[in-house]
Amino acid sequence: MQQVVRYLPETILGYGSVMPFAGLTGGQSPPRGHAAPIRVARRGGLKVMADLETLFRQIPIRSGMTLSFHHHLRNGDGVVNAVLATAAKLGIKDLTLALSAVYPVHAPLVDHMRAGTVTALDTDYISGPVAAAISHGILAQPVIMRTHGGRARAIEAGQRQIDVAFSAAPTADTQGNLTGVSGPNACGALGYAMPDAAHADWVVGVTDNLVPYPLAPIPIPQTQVDFVVQLPSIGDAGGIVSGITRVAQKPEQMPIAELAAKVIDAAGLIRDGFSFQTGAGGTSLAVTQFVRAMMAERGVIGSFALGGITGALVEMLEAGLFRRLLDVQAFDLAAVHSLATNPNHLEISAGHYASPWNRGCAVDQLDCVILGATEIDTNFNVNVTTGSDGVIRGGSGGHSDAAAGAQVAIVVTPLRRGPWPIVREQVTTVTTPGETIDVLVTDAGVAVNPKRRDLLEKLTAVDLPLKSIAELRRLAGEPPQRPATNGQIVAVVEYRNGTIIDVVRSIN
Amino acid sequence: MQQVVRYLPETILGYGSVMPFAGLTGGQSPPRGHAAPIRVARRGGLKVMADLETLFRQIPIRSGMTLSFHHHLRNGDGVVNAVLATAAKLGIKDLTLALSAVYPVHAPLVDHMRAGTVTALDTDYISGPVAAAISHGILAQPVIMRTHGGRARAIEAGQRQIDVAFSAAPTADTQGNLTGVSGPNACGALGYAMPDAAHADWVVGVTDNLVPYPLAPIPIPQTQVDFVVQLPSIGDAGGIVSGITRVAQKPEQMPIAELAAKVIDAAGLIRDGFSFQTGAGGTSLAVTQFVRAMMAERGVIGSFALGGITGALVEMLEAGLFRRLLDVQAFDLAAVHSLATNPNHLEISAGHYASPWNRGCAVDQLDCVILGATEIDTNFNVNVTTGSDGVIRGGSGGHSDAAAGAQVAIVVTPLRRGPWPIVREQVTTVTTPGETIDVLVTDAGVAVNPKRRDLLEKLTAVDLPLKSIAELRRLAGEPPQRPATNGQIVAVVEYRNGTIIDVVRSIN
Repeated sequence: MQQVVRYLPETILGYGSVMPFAGLTGGQSPPRGHAAPIRVARRGGLKVMADLETLFRQIPIRSGMTLSFHHHLRNGDGVVNAVLATAAKLGIKDLTLALSAVYPVHAPLVDHMRAGTVTALDTDYISGPVAAAISHGILAQPVIMRTHGGRARAIEAGQRQIDVAFSAAPTADTQGNLTGVSGPNACGALGYAMPDAAHADWVVGVTDNLVPYPLAPIPIPQTQVDFVVQLPSIGDAGGIVSGITRVAQKPEQMPIAELAAKVIDAAGLIRDGFSFQTGAGGTSLAVTQFVRAMMAERGVIGSFALGGITGALVEMLEAGLFRRLLDVQAFDLAAVHSLATNPNHLEISAGHYASPWNRGCAVDQLDCVILGATEIDTNFNVNVTTGSDGVIRGGSGGHSDAAAGAQVAIVVTPLRRGPWPIVREQVTTVTTPGETIDVLVTDAGVAVNPKRRDLLEKLTAVDLPLKSIAELRRLAGEPPQRPATNGQIVAVVEYRNGTIIDVVRSIN
Repeated sequence: MQQVVRYLPETILGYGSVMPFAGLTGGQSPPRGHAAPIRVARRGGLKVMADLETLFRQIPIRSGMTLSFHHHLRNGDGVVNAVLATAAKLGIKDLTLALSAVYPVHAPLVDHMRAGTVTALDTDYISGPVAAAISHGILAQPVIMRTHGGRARAIEAGQRQIDVAFSAAPTADTQGNLTGVSGPNACGALGYAMPDAAHADWVVGVTDNLVPYPLAPIPIPQTQVDFVVQLPSIGDAGGIVSGITRVAQKPEQMPIAELAAKVIDAAGLIRDGFSFQTGAGGTSLAVTQFVRAMMAERGVIGSFALGGITGALVEMLEAGLFRRLLDVQAFDLAAVHSLATNPNHLEISAGHYASPWNRGCAVDQLDCVILGATEIDTNFNVNVTTGSDGVIRGGSGGHSDAAAGAQVAIVVTPLRRGPWPIVREQVTTVTTPGETIDVLVTDAGVAVNPKRRDLLEKLTAVDLPLKSIAELRRLAGEPPQRPATNGQIVAVVEYRNGTIIDVVRSIN
């Protein structure tokens, strides 16, 4: 069954030739990974630079370079804006920005794009003013939208070369050891910064908490870091752990969450060794609460919870319901604190989390992942990249990675959101291929991907409102007409293995 | 001042052309490091191999390959012998063994060399029957003797290519995450195994404690590990933490240790932020006790102790006398336990510890290191590679690395050992160049390297038995005649930057 049919151009201006998505095992890996330059440290050499301008002149940073950043400071990040302001001041043009996720706080990027300071973007997720500007065609060159695992893969394999990696570091020592667990803007794990630090030509720690050597723990070691720059502040702690993390659930999310938990149970997963990933959205958090209750009631000890870590998962670790947390990114302060203090709460790199091109990543060990959807089609393809209006407002993040890895990937969503049917004939943009989605849980019933006959059997054996996905589509109703677009390609949606699964066109 | 004058051949049979030592900053680094092959894991693929023979056929391991091993199991290691027995059984020949240190337990290696199973050796330290056999010319090809930091440098830069890295792992999980802190043969830090795991073409964890996924902590991640093999036992716990670690000091060591502590104090190092490395020999441990007493008495808080970690240093961490321990290798069970439980006790890689070719290693941050010597000459060159009879019985390990990095490198040694004067006109073999040794402390007085006029001034200001090194040499007496040798070159002594600082010739 061909589940993804998108008509992709053979080449895209500003991107090059397109290798279309052709299944999970596609993509062309080079024989060896990418190694950083060898730089022989001078004993007694000082790494701490007075300010960003000094650093720019020291490296030196020039027009046309690729600068990378991580998104662990989320909507509280102050580092991207500070670095780009310096670039603009120095008259640097034509930068490629490899930033793992873009938030509303990065609004000044729109001006930098308009001015030609930044002319290309490589990212896993875009929200806020930058997303709108991209969708309206502010860049001549299409944005590359990757998955979190795909970004690690691209960097580790040398397909995303980085000239200078800026690693916002809540704490740094004078020799460039970096950590996220302490400091006024502690953000927890630095998993998405690790591939950059290991592979970029130059690596700069940017901190507002410079401490004596050596700090602890050391997720990013001094051996990788050329310079440290101290800023008055690297961000706003309030914005770091807010964003998509919500504690309160909306009432309409509860029935969907309860149904998803029943699916997990019916699939036979609530047993010792259970492993689990959820996002930090309301429905995901509610599923976690139902799963927790079942595990506690039956005395089940899970193996691990993975991915972005929330206080809900920390509580389950502390209650003995999971043996470990594998943490690539903290979603709240409870996760930050736990990473700093609990030896069973482990910080892992983005490659360890989800790259398809290494000797085994953690998502491949998942029993179950709970995923969201902006849209899902009758072939189970999911869109989390654009709204139904075609405007970018998200991206895969770890969505496609966890879906590919987990034994049972469950999409939870209401059938409709306002006027928009979520289940539809075709999604506006394909982010995650349907062959990696096993079950759809909605407020109107549960649909099992036909390729999972084993699951269908198990779910049929219990009392669940099973429906075909065609039936759910029918119940969702017809979508409003979307304005046709044949505008320029503003983004390519890259699957985790480097093939292109879709494109996003400009909104006129 | 030319402090190392050795007449080295321009080329050595079985080694190639010689780049002679020409100072600390010599050596030729390639532009980029060495990257391991990309291997795309199959989801659901099994990493656990039934036994070593199955593994050999799976990879497959062939004649002429380079197999690497670490020495964290020390004289209790069972993995090298088990792997080589398998190779011999399968008729494999001509292997290069890249084993970070060779102990008496590796005696079967002599037979493997005789039989042609192993024809080349690359190591940092050799003791026991293998050392004697090498010195008597058992291999046609000279052994490469590196420093611990130099070994990491060679692997990371691709100058020591490794086909298969065998990583003895006191605990492994089913996906190849490896740790040394738990299991019946816990050895603590796996620092010397990390470069191999990150850069070898194939990586195999060998364990006798296979646990469910995922283990904690994860010093060596599943992303690097192809296979796991379970053996009934990987070694003998008794031999792992014995060896050079001694708790009791000999009475004659105490005055030397006390003098060394006075030198450290006179040099002005006993102040907040003090950083320190010692070995695990009796005199070193005694120096640590004197230093500890001074620090405690004056309320000094040191920054870190580095290197091979002992219970004595763990006690100082726990007493608040150091803020951190940076641990590349545990010397005793107290160090193993502390690494497993104390968040200020950090595991670091051999590259982080001491490679000269990265963006800064830990030895460069040392205030003081205490080092031993088999011999030291009037230019302060130190031999820890051979006995005065020219027979190999050791090697640099971290000796040259710490000497190069520390602000004050102090050699402690009695003037004579039995009939052998330790201080002499010329050392039998140069391991560590005199320009990196600052002070010699003996039972007959203290000599300061003339290039450290600053230190000489400070030490003159206090009551210390200062002598010139020429005077100490005179007091040490004349060495017995050493039988002349013009035999084959059995080992090249490589300095940490890859240049050759000396050679060792066969004993006839």
